[in-house]
Amino acid sequence: MTHSLPIITLLTDFGDQDGYAGVMKGVILSIAPDVRLVDISHQIKPQDIQQAAHILGGAYRYFPPHTIHLVVVDPGVGGERRAIALETPRGRFVAPDNGVLTYVLQQEPSWQAVVLDKPDYWLPNPSYTFHGRDIFSPVAAHLANGVPLHRLGSPVSDLILLEQPPLEVLPNAIRGQVIRIDRFGNALTNIMRLRWIDERTVEFQPLNPSLIPTGTLRFDARKARVTFGWHTLNGLHQTYSQVAVGQPAALIGSTDGLEIAVNQGNAADALAIKVRDTVALLFEPTEA
Amino acid sequence: MTHSLPIITLLTDFGDQDGYAGVMKGVILSIAPDVRLVDISHQIKPQDIQQAAHILGGAYRYFPPHTIHLVVVDPGVGGERRAIALETPRGRFVAPDNGVLTYVLQQEPSWQAVVLDKPDYWLPNPSYTFHGRDIFSPVAAHLANGVPLHRLGSPVSDLILLEQPPLEVLPNAIRGQVIRIDRFGNALTNIMRLRWIDERTVEFQPLNPSLIPTGTLRFDARKARVTFGWHTLNGLHQTYSQVAVGQPAALIGSTDGLEIAVNQGNAADALAIKVRDTVALLFEPTEA
Amino acid sequence: MTHSLPIITLLTDFGDQDGYAGVMKGVILSIAPDVRLVDISHQIKPQDIQQAAHILGGAYRYFPPHTIHLVVVDPGVGGERRAIALETPRGRFVAPDNGVLTYVLQQEPSWQAVVLDKPDYWLPNPSYTFHGRDIFSPVAAHLANGVPLHRLGSPVSDLILLEQPPLEVLPNAIRGQVIRIDRFGNALTNIMRLRWIDERTVEFQPLNPSLIPTGTLRFDARKARVTFGWHTLNGLHQTYSQVAVGQPAALIGSTDGLEIAVNQGNAADALAIKVRDTVALLFEPTEA
Repeated sequence: MTHSLPIITLLTDFGDQDGYAGVMKGVILSIAPDVRLVDISHQIKPQDIQQAAHILGGAYRYFPPHTIHLVVVDPGVGGERRAIALETPRGRFVAPDNGVLTYVLQQEPSWQAVVLDKPDYWLPNPSYTFHGRDIFSPVAAHLANGVPLHRLGSPVSDLILLEQPPLEVLPNAIRGQVIRIDRFGNALTNIMRLRWIDERTVEFQPLNPSLIPTGTLRFDARKARVTFGWHTLNGLHQTYSQVAVGQPAALIGSTDGLEIAVNQGNAADALAIKVRDTVALLFEPTEA
Repeated sequence: MTHSLPIITLLTDFGDQDGYAGVMKGVILSIAPDVRLVDISHQIKPQDIQQAAHILGGAYRYFPPHTIHLVVVDPGVGGERRAIALETPRGRFVAPDNGVLTYVLQQEPSWQAVVLDKPDYWLPNPSYTFHGRDIFSPVAAHLANGVPLHRLGSPVSDLILLEQPPLEVLPNAIRGQVIRIDRFGNALTNIMRLRWIDERTVEFQPLNPSLIPTGTLRFDARKARVTFGWHTLNGLHQTYSQVAVGQPAALIGSTDGLEIAVNQGNAADALAIKVRDTVALLFEPTEA
Repeated sequence: MTHSLPIITLLTDFGDQDGYAGVMKGVILSIAPDVRLVDISHQIKPQDIQQAAHILGGAYRYFPPHTIHLVVVDPGVGGERRAIALETPRGRFVAPDNGVLTYVLQQEPSWQAVVLDKPDYWLPNPSYTFHGRDIFSPVAAHLANGVPLHRLGSPVSDLILLEQPPLEVLPNAIRGQVIRIDRFGNALTNIMRLRWIDERTVEFQPLNPSLIPTGTLRFDARKARVTFGWHTLNGLHQTYSQVAVGQPAALIGSTDGLEIAVNQGNAADALAIKVRDTVALLFEPTEA
């Protein structure tokens, strides 16, 4: 890691038409010419903080820990919302304080943050409507150049978190919601932290262990059922191709969440699934 | 700047499906392996020179001055239109001579240009339909490698400019047009070069100062009105969140132009605004 | 080439919304911090192996030969399909063995390949549904770091090829199919390997020379006709602007294939052309 160039990722709702993300990169390279730039997404639905937060939460851990993640989904730009920088052992973050870092903070017990209130590290005469260009990008570039976090602003500890969609855990069921439809039409739910113990057994370990007396739940994947709307799917599968082409399957997705998919098809379209639909995972617990 | 790697930006109407921009990057990296590549946009509407010119005009100044901007929106490829390279103090440009550099030339009084007529700096046997790959990309790469402008072609001084949409300046009004709808549905106009002097006062300084006897105009933003179609908006705002969610606002955008937006909404959809719609900014001038 | 950084290109059907391609880049940079990353496309139609194969076949030759092309269009992920790495004199490739390398293999007579069966070069505990992140990306990164092909897996020689769309060659006609509609609405056909000999003469040299007794065919472009659906176009043109704006033209595209276009318009929309439509090129052969 000693010789690694700094990395800045970008996650915005700017789309790819207007050059807004390109302008941010120009600002960054003007301040930190050696930085590596990586796009995570610019196709967040305009102002959809929840979607951006969820994508970031599944992505940041796959980057080197010295990476700086620049997140600009910022409906409150120019208003009262604070701009922040956050440091954790597995990544640094520059973003508006509007909840977009919720899933990072959930996974990182140890962090420190500052409110960006030092104009020395911004572009001169920042606009009121494009802080991504005038404040967030220069701050990220200065971080990449080695400016320590505490120089960029005043300490803050009361960061804003998104309200979590309801998740109900019973001894033989977990009830949650669809929280995102991805590009393939897969429906991703907030029933997270599932993993395969062996070919038949799945373990659920909630983020908040007090939800379950036993700390974890285990069950036979073949006997589990997933219900949503009018549909019931029998069994959890490991991968799409375990069902016939065009058939639906419930499975554990690549970020350990319950997911509803159609093999080589679009589950959201075929089964009329929408974000916020209720999904239940029913099972017979086995001994851990 | 001495240790900075060369930067080439790309601005095209190639979309992101067919790999055309990727191929251009392959050509560039084959000639100039150290170059940094930054996408400005590949989602220009096919053959929309005006849109590309406007995006470029708002973006290039945010890049380091040694950056080379490669622009390929080229409906006349293979025909009579010339291919050019342009050098200015704030950036270099490689593009077809079809007006796509209009807003750069407006902002850069000092420039020199050449017609690309030296096949030594192209790929061998260039195609008739993809000069982006066969001529523009290799020329940009050779520029990045340090080949001086005059080696790439013959001097030229009569570059093509786009016809400007009408802009009428009166002592108490400016009348212009919507020239672009961005990804958020914000309507950007050609009433440019506005800026906040203080919390209440806006100054307008036309590119061509002979438009106004006084050189500049100042007015009270709270008493200004913006009219378009059936709509009148009272007051210029600094940012979206100064009006309620879902409400329209007229404001000065991040590139200093008059802009019509809806807070957390889509102004173009909600107010049925289209490119080329007439927009008027009405005000009572105050003393400069 | 000695000082060139390694290059990895990405070609997927992941879209640009969910951050999946960004995550792959995070994995790559964690293993190979110096690698250059270039997107070819992430907008392949979900699971459309044919489209990805065709785009890759037209793109890879424009990159330096040390480039590694990472291709993840993978409907069979987690199932029986093999994962492979391929080495050729003009590029290396990491992909599922599902035919996506068909057009590379057609153009590269000399190659070696391995089945990826060495988990040492994968992420630990790979998921069942995202081998792009857990297997293909780390393997590509290790290749970029200099790990030789044979260390990554066991030799394989029976790679899967896509069935080719029919191509019929007669002394005075070639009959093929539309195989791709590009972003401009241009219809690209499998009548490939055409080139201009002079301003009037086109030569056709089939990949399989046994198709024609003479090895190649030559004809006068002005007397050729192209038929499809209800339409007949007279003459092959060199570029779009040789016909009036809005008029259709048959021409030889930038990858040497017969293409149907409309000058500054969308041929697929205007002429109702679809993938798999039959296209015939009729001509009077001249002497080679």
